[in-house]
Amino acid sequence: MTDKCYYIYIISDSAGETASKLAQAAMSQYATVNVALVRKTFVSEKKDLVEALERAKACNAIIIHTIISPEFVQFANQYCQENDLFCMDILSPVVNELAKRSGIDPTRLPGAMHSLNQEYFNRIAAMEFAVKYDDGKDPKGFLEADIVLLGVSRTSKTPLSLFLANKNLKVANLPLIPQAHIPKELWEVNPKKIVGLTNNPEILNKIRQERMKAYGLNPNTAYSDINKINEELAFANKLYEKLGCLVINVADLSIEETASIILQELNLEEYTYHG
Amino acid sequence: MTDKCYYIYIISDSAGETASKLAQAAMSQYATVNVALVRKTFVSEKKDLVEALERAKACNAIIIHTIISPEFVQFANQYCQENDLFCMDILSPVVNELAKRSGIDPTRLPGAMHSLNQEYFNRIAAMEFAVKYDDGKDPKGFLEADIVLLGVSRTSKTPLSLFLANKNLKVANLPLIPQAHIPKELWEVNPKKIVGLTNNPEILNKIRQERMKAYGLNPNTAYSDINKINEELAFANKLYEKLGCLVINVADLSIEETASIILQELNLEEYTYHG
Repeated sequence: MTDKCYYIYIISDSAGETASKLAQAAMSQYATVNVALVRKTFVSEKKDLVEALERAKACNAIIIHTIISPEFVQFANQYCQENDLFCMDILSPVVNELAKRSGIDPTRLPGAMHSLNQEYFNRIAAMEFAVKYDDGKDPKGFLEADIVLLGVSRTSKTPLSLFLANKNLKVANLPLIPQAHIPKELWEVNPKKIVGLTNNPEILNKIRQERMKAYGLNPNTAYSDINKINEELAFANKLYEKLGCLVINVADLSIEETASIILQELNLEEYTYHG
Repeated sequence: MTDKCYYIYIISDSAGETASKLAQAAMSQYATVNVALVRKTFVSEKKDLVEALERAKACNAIIIHTIISPEFVQFANQYCQENDLFCMDILSPVVNELAKRSGIDPTRLPGAMHSLNQEYFNRIAAMEFAVKYDDGKDPKGFLEADIVLLGVSRTSKTPLSLFLANKNLKVANLPLIPQAHIPKELWEVNPKKIVGLTNNPEILNKIRQERMKAYGLNPNTAYSDINKINEELAFANKLYEKLGCLVINVADLSIEETASIILQELNLEEYTYHG
């Protein structure tokens, strides 16, 4: 780890989520470099824009901006050019290209992505659905869900449900334990909506030992016993086969990666279509 | 709505989340234009990259790519130039600039942002925390939380908790109803960690009527009665004042916007620092 700190300044007329994602993707390539991410968000007045640019200049920051006002974009780009600052204008090239192709003007509303429209309310509803039908709380949710996730303990069911909810999908999940009763509703669900999650036994063993330690308990309980884990996985795999559902081993996958596979395999990518 | 459909192709060696955010921000500026978003993700072999570029070319797509291999980046950029395709290389300019400044090479691991490191596991834990301590289920969560959200029904407590969890923050929330008992743990929480959410009575009235309709119930119940709502809000505001916590009216705010304000006001933006 070097001592020097480098700065990335996000300047946005909205919440700055797009630019932050980019900054984080770039920063994650440098585990040993100190990078401070500073966000100047909801910049709606010229004076705020000027102040943000001046502060960025003071620490010779890498600037990433997402601004919809053409006047502000031009001002920011020109300021950076004149002051020899590294500046990435990520939003306006794509917005302008769509204007050129379609012949239609953009709405120019900052944060249009977060406008309180039907899609937004559907997303809120999907998140509430995920919480309501997490952990097999109510099997009725299976029949309403876009996706039903099954899996033994520690296969990312909850975070995966929430991540997919953020993509407007209604997700219910059910933990699998050999002794447990499988709700009859599961057999009424289209198998093409079901995803069976699995993991490598040695990984589950390690994760579960850590979990027990975190709870201040003996790490070597039945929960983390490798034979018990193998039994659970065998039970789960047999059920997945019987259901004829998609099976994903999450051992080396992040939730983003698992979600991406699910969207592709379940043909749910059309959900990202627009208009 | 015009009939013609325009294409945006995302090409990524990882889950394509960064480029998707940008595409969605741009698309949201054109409510009346048909834009199809196609993702070609986890491109790890040259033949997949070539195939993605050829498909993008076939529909004259706007291409946005996030690729970490310099060889692939160069190939993609050159292909687009030779074929006169609109191409935005968003990741490599920032990655290269950080390399230039720090003198350190990027790890060049695709999807480093999603690597299964401590930060990743903390985020998973934060999401599970949010589900566990949603809806005031267990007041013990207040004492462990980074943020405690309070609010009457329909002030976005649950989605906001989940959104902040995605930023590695442990969030517990408590619904406020005048008859309810306020758990004693709340008074042990640092008020600087508490956020009181409020909304305009007429908006709550409308949202709650819609909710009742969605449940197939009479929209004009006590739940949506404006006098009851005013009573609830007065109760909440009095509590917020007594606690001395931050108060946010979410009436015109999306969860992203509310979250952004919370991070700023509670000085939690350092959570986005790295290294």
